[in-house]
Amino acid sequence: MRNIVAIGSIAIDDVETPYGKREGAVGGSLTYFSYAASLFSDVALVGVVGKDFPLEVLKDLERRGCCLEGVEIKDGKSFRWAGVYRKGKEDPDTLKTELGLFGEFNPEPPESYRKTRILYLGNLAPSLQRALLEKIDYEIVAMDTMNHWIQSHRKELEEILPSIDVLFINRQEAEMLSGETGSYPSCLKLLKMGPRTVVVKRGEGGAIMCRENEVVAIPAYPVAEVIDPTGAGDSFAGGFLGSLASGTGWRRALAIGVAVSSFSVESFSVDRLKEISREDVERRLNKIRELVTF
Amino acid sequence: MRNIVAIGSIAIDDVETPYGKREGAVGGSLTYFSYAASLFSDVALVGVVGKDFPLEVLKDLERRGCCLEGVEIKDGKSFRWAGVYRKGKEDPDTLKTELGLFGEFNPEPPESYRKTRILYLGNLAPSLQRALLEKIDYEIVAMDTMNHWIQSHRKELEEILPSIDVLFINRQEAEMLSGETGSYPSCLKLLKMGPRTVVVKRGEGGAIMCRENEVVAIPAYPVAEVIDPTGAGDSFAGGFLGSLASGTGWRRALAIGVAVSSFSVESFSVDRLKEISREDVERRLNKIRELVTF
Repeated sequence: MRNIVAIGSIAIDDVETPYGKREGAVGGSLTYFSYAASLFSDVALVGVVGKDFPLEVLKDLERRGCCLEGVEIKDGKSFRWAGVYRKGKEDPDTLKTELGLFGEFNPEPPESYRKTRILYLGNLAPSLQRALLEKIDYEIVAMDTMNHWIQSHRKELEEILPSIDVLFINRQEAEMLSGETGSYPSCLKLLKMGPRTVVVKRGEGGAIMCRENEVVAIPAYPVAEVIDPTGAGDSFAGGFLGSLASGTGWRRALAIGVAVSSFSVESFSVDRLKEISREDVERRLNKIRELVTF
Repeated sequence: MRNIVAIGSIAIDDVETPYGKREGAVGGSLTYFSYAASLFSDVALVGVVGKDFPLEVLKDLERRGCCLEGVEIKDGKSFRWAGVYRKGKEDPDTLKTELGLFGEFNPEPPESYRKTRILYLGNLAPSLQRALLEKIDYEIVAMDTMNHWIQSHRKELEEILPSIDVLFINRQEAEMLSGETGSYPSCLKLLKMGPRTVVVKRGEGGAIMCRENEVVAIPAYPVAEVIDPTGAGDSFAGGFLGSLASGTGWRRALAIGVAVSSFSVESFSVDRLKEISREDVERRLNKIRELVTF
């Protein structure tokens, strides 16, 4: 049995932020997720890349205990995203989204992936998420989504929510999906739509997690220079589920998600995630604890 | 010597929120501040109202230990604000702002106000804030401001910042005044502009306080139904400074600000602030502590 099977994009990003520019950087939701989760657990990836993707990154993930058996390497182009983060704006302006091979991706997880403790469905078409749900035997299933699916595939999305254990969603999307104002009212409404646990990512407001009779809120760790916000949410989910898979409790898993995502934004691409250790995360958890002490 | 001398608006509000409508409700930054601060300390108010303002509110404040000697009651109209909070939007649409007597307000604090532990300069023209600073002998001076003064009176505002001990400001205003993105980078920059302590109010993200070598962040207490957000920031400042005046430490004062403002939004006007006791605040502090425990 696997600990985590995760599906998502493995991409090449062209990113510009007030701190500089990176062309051809390693990106994609599954990449960030896997670097973060592999701090705590092995991860079996399901994805697709073109021959333009740097193979040493896949090798690096293998060295970190990831299984790449479910990653297809095909003739063609990898998912490519280009965006600019502007001063004073939290969300980037997207300049280019080229789906490449990811556009026709029809995931077929290998036989060895069929049983897992945690299944993570990254931000994908709800129909693909559902197909994975049916193919894999899991104990806990978590998913992410985005405004595009909420706007144009709401029905399919709402149909899978009752099967979901953990929904990761950002504040704007939570409000859009629930029709409520504010993360907490949105959480309460979303819990009625099916998921057993709702985790709303709220930028510098950190994260709030609602489950039956339990609410936890952790502020973001204050980062003086946010070099590149790309992948913060995926690193958060990776830290959360990676630690959960390794036996950590839910409240601490939430704080670990917050801590890991704070590292992720300290450099471009996955550079900072690559460097950090579990001890670094532990130290940051202590700082977060200090932050909220009164 | 006074504990707190506070200046600000005492107003009549016409408010509409997704939960209903209130015409002629008691409002104003000084009103919210005083109801909140008087839970912990006596407060000496400096303000002006017209004969249209309900006198029983001033009497109620006196019963709570406030001194109204500095509140002028004049022929003419009180400050009147009308606004609508719409679903999915944090900030209200202002329909009407009639300054009335507040427009020509030239505060002349009574002799008995000339010495105080804490001076609170509510959101006013920087020139008036400065005049008060010069007339009153204080140990700690705190101030609030708003986008209007930052945009059109930046120079005067920047000139008083070095005299300020505690700057209360919301996130958008902190970014506007500092030119940075995010509350924490803004705090760091604002500290260099003069104030010894910067407190950024960030809605459901709670509040972050930065002082020399110290950062504290408390998430907002989750309120399922935000009936009326008016005055949340003023109640926050009142809870913070009221408890500080009564000898509470800075970190706990921040949490008390967060707790008191969460009560404030649970009803229209100052209805909820009127009802609560220090024990209610204590219970909410315990809930906030539970919220951030991991």
